[in-house]
Amino acid sequence: MPVVLADLSIEARWIVPMSMPGKVLENHTLVVRDGRILDLLPSADAAQRYSSTALVQRSRHLLMPGMVNASTHAAMTLMRGAPMRGPAREPTAIGRAAIGRAAIGRAAIGRAAVGPDMARDGVLMAIAEMLCSGVTCFADRSCFPDATARTAAEQGLRAVIGMPVAETPSPWASLDLRDEYKDHPLISTVFAPHRPNTLSDATFARIATLADELDAGMVIDLHESAAEIAESVALYGMRPIERLWQLGLLTPALNACHMAHATDEDAALAQRTGISISLCPQSNLKKSGVLPPAAAFAASGIRLGLGSGDGAPFQGLDIWGEMKLLAQMSGAGATPLGAWDALAMATRGGAAVLGLEVNVGTLESGKWADLCCVDLGGPATQPLGDPVAQLVFCGGRDMVSDVWVAGRQLLANAELTRLDWSGAAERAGTWAARLNIGE
Amino acid sequence: MPVVLADLSIEARWIVPMSMPGKVLENHTLVVRDGRILDLLPSADAAQRYSSTALVQRSRHLLMPGMVNASTHAAMTLMRGAPMRGPAREPTAIGRAAIGRAAIGRAAIGRAAVGPDMARDGVLMAIAEMLCSGVTCFADRSCFPDATARTAAEQGLRAVIGMPVAETPSPWASLDLRDEYKDHPLISTVFAPHRPNTLSDATFARIATLADELDAGMVIDLHESAAEIAESVALYGMRPIERLWQLGLLTPALNACHMAHATDEDAALAQRTGISISLCPQSNLKKSGVLPPAAAFAASGIRLGLGSGDGAPFQGLDIWGEMKLLAQMSGAGATPLGAWDALAMATRGGAAVLGLEVNVGTLESGKWADLCCVDLGGPATQPLGDPVAQLVFCGGRDMVSDVWVAGRQLLANAELTRLDWSGAAERAGTWAARLNIGE
Repeated sequence: MPVVLADLSIEARWIVPMSMPGKVLENHTLVVRDGRILDLLPSADAAQRYSSTALVQRSRHLLMPGMVNASTHAAMTLMRGAPMRGPAREPTAIGRAAIGRAAIGRAAIGRAAVGPDMARDGVLMAIAEMLCSGVTCFADRSCFPDATARTAAEQGLRAVIGMPVAETPSPWASLDLRDEYKDHPLISTVFAPHRPNTLSDATFARIATLADELDAGMVIDLHESAAEIAESVALYGMRPIERLWQLGLLTPALNACHMAHATDEDAALAQRTGISISLCPQSNLKKSGVLPPAAAFAASGIRLGLGSGDGAPFQGLDIWGEMKLLAQMSGAGATPLGAWDALAMATRGGAAVLGLEVNVGTLESGKWADLCCVDLGGPATQPLGDPVAQLVFCGGRDMVSDVWVAGRQLLANAELTRLDWSGAAERAGTWAARLNIGE
Repeated sequence: MPVVLADLSIEARWIVPMSMPGKVLENHTLVVRDGRILDLLPSADAAQRYSSTALVQRSRHLLMPGMVNASTHAAMTLMRGAPMRGPAREPTAIGRAAIGRAAIGRAAIGRAAVGPDMARDGVLMAIAEMLCSGVTCFADRSCFPDATARTAAEQGLRAVIGMPVAETPSPWASLDLRDEYKDHPLISTVFAPHRPNTLSDATFARIATLADELDAGMVIDLHESAAEIAESVALYGMRPIERLWQLGLLTPALNACHMAHATDEDAALAQRTGISISLCPQSNLKKSGVLPPAAAFAASGIRLGLGSGDGAPFQGLDIWGEMKLLAQMSGAGATPLGAWDALAMATRGGAAVLGLEVNVGTLESGKWADLCCVDLGGPATQPLGDPVAQLVFCGGRDMVSDVWVAGRQLLANAELTRLDWSGAAERAGTWAARLNIGE
């Protein structure tokens, strides 16, 4: 058999393709060409069959699909140190108004020029944190989607960009963004209507129609708080998920973030309509002391991903924390979820929630080589008996050694290869100072 | 003023002495002599007043008291990869019997010689993990307390060693251990009766008397599960905490671990009798899906520390995870706890729970120099606005750079200085293999 040329071969002690539960390959090699997975086979066979330009050997590591953060507000990372006020622990107005979802366009707040440049530097901080923790794809919402998209593309990270929809004279301006990234290998766009209770029936109905016509995804925070549900009942006589159903938004194209407060009926409606849910357990626990009914959602077959949810303040982008909390909180009860389920949500589940499962989420031939490699030889995971369970319950971002997106290595031996961290951190510090945050 | 000689000066960007809430010192220096804190003062003054043999400068770091893990089963770390069985997710019998609390003395299980050597290697793994995550003191229970004490002393870590008490012909043999470490600067001992429902009234009463006579501490798992409480009600006609109260164990010398299931009456009884509680939220969530009522305990003034609780399988010693979960789960509600409260529990609270508050837990002159230094310059904590809140909510063990215990540096720039990690890991792997765990 002739030797086949390839770009990259990665040998790892364990490879977990996530293509089926329980599948852990030992001493296998993943072969990459043109940014996509070409093969996954025993290392001995790989050496005979492929000749790769680069060979990466990771003798005490586990290689798996890159992690997916299915709900971020990356630009808000600039605000992570913002002071909080009162028992509700909301950030001060300046912070949220500055680069949060409430602000549209460019505005001068204090001495800070809020705009795409500021958003870019916030997004860079978020991308640095995500890459260092093994995330290869994130689904973001902010008021500067173009800045987020451009920054992600420049840094080589995969991103699903929410195009904000609000009750403004021109709510569809962001369709330009959709056209701009139509055939981009890393960037895709979805409609991101503001919260359920802030948009009219007509606007929601129009979103549903447009999403259907354009075959576009949608993302919205849903049932994040008890107050949101009570307000909807008062305003519209029904719970938010019921209202969105009546308005035609509950389709497989919808990524509903949070669903922390869900009755059995809510879960049944979600299951019946085929929507996806991005769970954000750390955010829910911190903001309202509740945890989403993940095991019940999973038992009914709903597609589940994991996300960070709310942005600043004091909310990181630690997908390992979400995964561990999900596994911990779901292990007891009638239909327990285990480490595999949690890891699946953090990888292939997130990909499915974002409609990307054809191209990423598992290590299978033909998919993009979006990869995360973790070192299991450290004090938190030795001695090793069950790689996946120990990775989920005892692991953390500190174990991530390497990250590739579409075959390009963005983290190597825990060092960022492309992103200029010190420059980005310095600019972020300057922005924070102008917003009166910090040191 | 004459220059004073000292052993070590540590300059850090921030120093958080934990001596009072909200106190964050900038550009200060901590001065150490003979293992104890000599002074804490502005760096400019320190340079004039002290001449130290060693100077450590940490320009983007926060220096704080070493963290305290108030409930561990360190030897069980060998079992962390053990397979689990059934929905209850308990480790297989071999694992728990091997080095868990159920086994007394030396026994041959399979081909593994269970004994102090095995326990030592498990404890070494635990110490490596704890040092790398900033822990300077741990309170441990195992069947080989002598091996644990000796290993901790050799490695220079502070430890409170539980002397197991069970219904055996000679339950007090371990008093020898107490005599052996009577004046040791790092090691102290406490009575560790087995679970509430496994000891007779007479034995508990005798423990209470002995602890009082010897001025000794006591530690027990209390109200960890609903089953434990139901069993106690069935056997003794009362809840475990009520039974211990009647038998005289509820005194300020008692460290009650877990208290995950506590009624208002239980909390009132704990408060009235002055016992301490070591919260183990990750263990509780994982094993039974509940979280302890930390905010209620704190509101009533009960001394609170944090611990890992249950040992293997898949339970790490990640005190950062306990701290973060505690802060996240306690931020909502009528009497919210914040980042400061969580950090206090992980440091001075743990010291108080273990009866060590006179000597460790805060950075005050005269106390032992048990210190933890964390790097706040990385992607998870930049830009920085509130060092403590970001440390608790966005931080993790990966930020720990340096650890000193009684002035001796055991971790330097994230490298273990004294513990032979590779040797310990190799032996641990061998033990695990003999126990049929793993690779």
